[in-house]
Amino acid sequence: MKGYAMLTIGQTGWIEKDIPKCGPADAICKPIALAPCTSDIHTVWSGALGDRHDMILGHEAVGEVVEVGSEVKDFKVGDRVLVSAITPDWNSIAAQEGYPMHSGGMLSGWKFSNFKDGVFAEYFHVNDADGNLAKLPEGMDLGAAAMLADMIPTGFHGVELADVQFGDNVAVIGIGPVGLMSVAAAAIRGAAEIFAVGSRKNCADLAREYGATDIINYREGDIVEQIMAKTGGKGVDKVIIAGGDNDTFAQAIEILKPGGIIGNVNYLGEGDFVKIPRVQWGCGMSHKTVRGGLMPGGRVRSEKLARLIMTGRIHPEKMITHTFQGLEGVEPALMLMKDKPRDLIKPLVLL
Amino acid sequence: MKGYAMLTIGQTGWIEKDIPKCGPADAICKPIALAPCTSDIHTVWSGALGDRHDMILGHEAVGEVVEVGSEVKDFKVGDRVLVSAITPDWNSIAAQEGYPMHSGGMLSGWKFSNFKDGVFAEYFHVNDADGNLAKLPEGMDLGAAAMLADMIPTGFHGVELADVQFGDNVAVIGIGPVGLMSVAAAAIRGAAEIFAVGSRKNCADLAREYGATDIINYREGDIVEQIMAKTGGKGVDKVIIAGGDNDTFAQAIEILKPGGIIGNVNYLGEGDFVKIPRVQWGCGMSHKTVRGGLMPGGRVRSEKLARLIMTGRIHPEKMITHTFQGLEGVEPALMLMKDKPRDLIKPLVLL
Amino acid sequence: MKGYAMLTIGQTGWIEKDIPKCGPADAICKPIALAPCTSDIHTVWSGALGDRHDMILGHEAVGEVVEVGSEVKDFKVGDRVLVSAITPDWNSIAAQEGYPMHSGGMLSGWKFSNFKDGVFAEYFHVNDADGNLAKLPEGMDLGAAAMLADMIPTGFHGVELADVQFGDNVAVIGIGPVGLMSVAAAAIRGAAEIFAVGSRKNCADLAREYGATDIINYREGDIVEQIMAKTGGKGVDKVIIAGGDNDTFAQAIEILKPGGIIGNVNYLGEGDFVKIPRVQWGCGMSHKTVRGGLMPGGRVRSEKLARLIMTGRIHPEKMITHTFQGLEGVEPALMLMKDKPRDLIKPLVLL
Amino acid sequence: MKGYAMLTIGQTGWIEKDIPKCGPADAICKPIALAPCTSDIHTVWSGALGDRHDMILGHEAVGEVVEVGSEVKDFKVGDRVLVSAITPDWNSIAAQEGYPMHSGGMLSGWKFSNFKDGVFAEYFHVNDADGNLAKLPEGMDLGAAAMLADMIPTGFHGVELADVQFGDNVAVIGIGPVGLMSVAAAAIRGAAEIFAVGSRKNCADLAREYGATDIINYREGDIVEQIMAKTGGKGVDKVIIAGGDNDTFAQAIEILKPGGIIGNVNYLGEGDFVKIPRVQWGCGMSHKTVRGGLMPGGRVRSEKLARLIMTGRIHPEKMITHTFQGLEGVEPALMLMKDKPRDLIKPLVLL
Repeated sequence: MKGYAMLTIGQTGWIEKDIPKCGPADAICKPIALAPCTSDIHTVWSGALGDRHDMILGHEAVGEVVEVGSEVKDFKVGDRVLVSAITPDWNSIAAQEGYPMHSGGMLSGWKFSNFKDGVFAEYFHVNDADGNLAKLPEGMDLGAAAMLADMIPTGFHGVELADVQFGDNVAVIGIGPVGLMSVAAAAIRGAAEIFAVGSRKNCADLAREYGATDIINYREGDIVEQIMAKTGGKGVDKVIIAGGDNDTFAQAIEILKPGGIIGNVNYLGEGDFVKIPRVQWGCGMSHKTVRGGLMPGGRVRSEKLARLIMTGRIHPEKMITHTFQGLEGVEPALMLMKDKPRDLIKPLVLL
Repeated sequence: MKGYAMLTIGQTGWIEKDIPKCGPADAICKPIALAPCTSDIHTVWSGALGDRHDMILGHEAVGEVVEVGSEVKDFKVGDRVLVSAITPDWNSIAAQEGYPMHSGGMLSGWKFSNFKDGVFAEYFHVNDADGNLAKLPEGMDLGAAAMLADMIPTGFHGVELADVQFGDNVAVIGIGPVGLMSVAAAAIRGAAEIFAVGSRKNCADLAREYGATDIINYREGDIVEQIMAKTGGKGVDKVIIAGGDNDTFAQAIEILKPGGIIGNVNYLGEGDFVKIPRVQWGCGMSHKTVRGGLMPGGRVRSEKLARLIMTGRIHPEKMITHTFQGLEGVEPALMLMKDKPRDLIKPLVLL
Repeated sequence: MKGYAMLTIGQTGWIEKDIPKCGPADAICKPIALAPCTSDIHTVWSGALGDRHDMILGHEAVGEVVEVGSEVKDFKVGDRVLVSAITPDWNSIAAQEGYPMHSGGMLSGWKFSNFKDGVFAEYFHVNDADGNLAKLPEGMDLGAAAMLADMIPTGFHGVELADVQFGDNVAVIGIGPVGLMSVAAAAIRGAAEIFAVGSRKNCADLAREYGATDIINYREGDIVEQIMAKTGGKGVDKVIIAGGDNDTFAQAIEILKPGGIIGNVNYLGEGDFVKIPRVQWGCGMSHKTVRGGLMPGGRVRSEKLARLIMTGRIHPEKMITHTFQGLEGVEPALMLMKDKPRDLIKPLVLL
Repeated sequence: MKGYAMLTIGQTGWIEKDIPKCGPADAICKPIALAPCTSDIHTVWSGALGDRHDMILGHEAVGEVVEVGSEVKDFKVGDRVLVSAITPDWNSIAAQEGYPMHSGGMLSGWKFSNFKDGVFAEYFHVNDADGNLAKLPEGMDLGAAAMLADMIPTGFHGVELADVQFGDNVAVIGIGPVGLMSVAAAAIRGAAEIFAVGSRKNCADLAREYGATDIINYREGDIVEQIMAKTGGKGVDKVIIAGGDNDTFAQAIEILKPGGIIGNVNYLGEGDFVKIPRVQWGCGMSHKTVRGGLMPGGRVRSEKLARLIMTGRIHPEKMITHTFQGLEGVEPALMLMKDKPRDLIKPLVLL
């Protein structure tokens, strides 16, 4: 089969591989919608996962089942399915402890284009089909469905980590697709003021539409000063980090009230340390909690978040700014993510 | 001063009383908006609290401060204020344990028109002004503000008790003003399907506007059967009870999935026992949790919920169907609550 | 193979059956220690699960692996293993939602001697071996190990459901083996006063040794009055129900403070309704929460609770009052549980 | 009155001051037991709070009430009382939000020897007596009682922050008095293995007595390597930090499993940043949570923790290694804390 792969650090291209084999609990799918992710860019051009050779890229897909293992109960050939980007081993120690995304080791629930070939191919393999697939709801927009693989569950996880409560003032740092989903999630989790930190106009416009009350543009001044001014010097109840770098945490601590929580869902690709400023952290005693985590993954999460689309609570399809047709479309779509033109939020490939 | 009072069980009328005295931590207010509550009806005509003589009624008010005690720091004469219907003793054992509404004994955070005169008077007394008042935000609709005394915090508490999560299917039983606020709360707390159980057309219309996806009319069939049919026999993740009686709990248990939660905010005025059906409760092992509680009360809650109005997340003023002018208006407003004409949701009195 | 079975309601006996077949994720074990449970008595003599024919009894076992499926990674033939009485399907919707014990339907994580043959046989089948077995720690007493199947995880779950906190006063109703484990669990979860409700002397003595501060004997007066007297009329913070019947809940509500929690782990075998007294439940608004659940089951729980034995935090082997040798011992052991002689706490069968 | 004060940074001495005035909700007490704390040392000799002039030191006391304000309901002259080192304003925004220790600003629940005179004097002032005092239980050892001011609630808060669960493996870094109380707390909160990190023999011996299973001496090798070796490379579930410095957090992250929690109760007096190592923190996605907080303070906490002493669950009096008589004893007691002789754990002054 044909697949679009990382050849080595800094290089991508089309390769041929065998169709993956299906274990007794697994499924083989062919893609019907695909989307590239910033992580793919980090994987190839920053070498974030280390060097990989001829590894097929991609972890955001909507698929159709073409084969199922003998133990699979709930899915059959021909089913159109949502595919979680994170596919845990559900009987693992980590999953039983409540952290499925770390089954098999820290972050190891992330398998596509990491420990095995990804979804940018004619066929892809899904471990534990009953646990990691979900039926594509009748009538769901394919762009929205593709966002259920990673953008929605990741953005929403930031809000879960930050434990947003009714009437909280919330800052969302970063308004790329994940941050936009954090804004939407905060708004339907009961946040009052939502300060969305970003500078791109199309993202800012969509952030407002998704529920942001204020756009904080770092090009117009220090974001700490802007947010403290808008909150009367009190700071916010919760911060979701969906962009930036290690230094973003110092800003987040500064704008956070005692008792507040930081929920990070940004992949930190560089640097040695995240630095927590001692004095603003109350000399260790501020009750400003720092959390960060890979999204859980799995079937139930896909099903529950899908319901939010089907009941009209969220509109992730509005993030799709560019659409390509056919498997070949993953190449220009990925290059768009790499080059980030001003009008891009998220590209989609339909097959 | 003049006040509208319960004279004895089954009788109300205007009386004269002394203006209440202000302790060092307290405030005296005059009302600028008032609303009667179904509890006032239960108090007078069902004798729900036992017999009371010449007790001024009412616990839903927006006020203006006319006197403050020497220890009050954050409020001064002339401040326009939100007044929580529940006014805890914040240094009490119960409040320190996380249950301020039970300070001084079970339910004893409820003081207005229960342990002391209520708000349907020229002046009323607020204990612990710093802890129980909140500034009326500039520009807030007075009808919305009046709903912050009881309807909003009570309706929202049902959703907090039920711990609604992203993508949950939720049933809200009862769509009077409290149930309507539970619908609105569920929708902005991440619920997917919301099954609102009620029969009155104007309430049903507003429930849909607030986010209900389905109206379950008990006049059109058994509500358990209707909800089970709509959920493919699976039942719902959470139930909020904002109406009905003791028997409602049996229905709630039946429609609830294992692991689900019932959050009750309905005052149960009659009968000996709430009955939990043994078999549907998994012989005691279903993990179907039954919770119920008086809303917390206090300043922070008023402030946080007020932010939800000011940021346009909720629109409680839409519940106001009838408006009266002047203190005398509390009498016809109360009678409306007693008679419940078909076009009533909630009356308001402006002063 | 030979097994001790329920022949029909009210009858037990030895039968011959085929050795169970091993699926790709499963294991076949032979028992090295077994214990009968009160549930076995309910199953046979009360017909609690309905009629069953020639179903091998028993769900408490320590075993040795004799066969593993092709997908099993962490266990091999010859491993000595702890076997959880509850063996969930870990990739199920219910498990992903946090309720593995209800995978496949309410209570359906309970499979042994319910949906399939139990462990009182020469061989027994364990679904999802990696998820439901745990290594028997070197040097662990076999009596203690057998208690890890059900008595410990169930008793401890009561304390988890009741969410005992530092300094809580706790009542444990019922001091059979499960209740005794709830006493031990409460003591190492930070409870202060522990009121253990029971009447049998040997159980009372062991309850004290496990941490009970007071024994409340219902033969010496109403337990509500006794506990209210001992708490100065305030009641307790938490109640764990590990015995009694439907009516026990009314007592539990009465002795519970507002904001308190009931954690039930008692199987309620009879009656139509658990009754919550309306007035003592604060007319629905007391924040007295009623929870009840089947213990979670699975490998991680076995491993974590095993650590508590290996570090000397708990001493479940002290509950073993009678020991039998050989598979044939399950018959007299079960009859002991049925007849409950005064010196019995828990019997054990070694093979 | 006479008091032992910080004269300026680096200098202490006896001074004369007026007896403090009693507000309507307050109490004036005279000490019956006192203890100095490492924080007093930091305050004077490191200038941790900035310069202060003639500020009476001390925040650990057991007292006798000599005056109460007109609004105080539950205490009267002559009552012997536990005094919380942290005395929140219970009607504040922060307390209503669940963070009483930050009432009036981050860490501002800490008032003694910080914003007002401390307890090393003939008399001291307690704000909100009903909310911040607790009756000294009949028969309680005065050394144990003095530990209820700060050492016990702080050490226990570390375990609460880390949310220790049944069977968790826990590391406690630092085994001074606070760390020892964290060890004791972890043991009665359900921890299995407890790795106590420290080097002083008397502290190590007491740590074992309080429940530590292993002493990790940093003089015998890297603590990360030692703990990873003892946990088979898996690390621990929870870490409580009760000693060390900013760099301790990097070690804590390394020994922590994904999904684990750090609970810090160590006052970080120096340095600009707490550094979280990016890679071991899973590039921001490890679900290793970092929490730290000042202990809550207040009456309920004192009462609940006191019950643990009265029921024999903990034995804090064993930490008292040196006892002095009379108010003058605070000077040599403080000097002991400054010089830290090898046989010191905690000094006590009886009056």
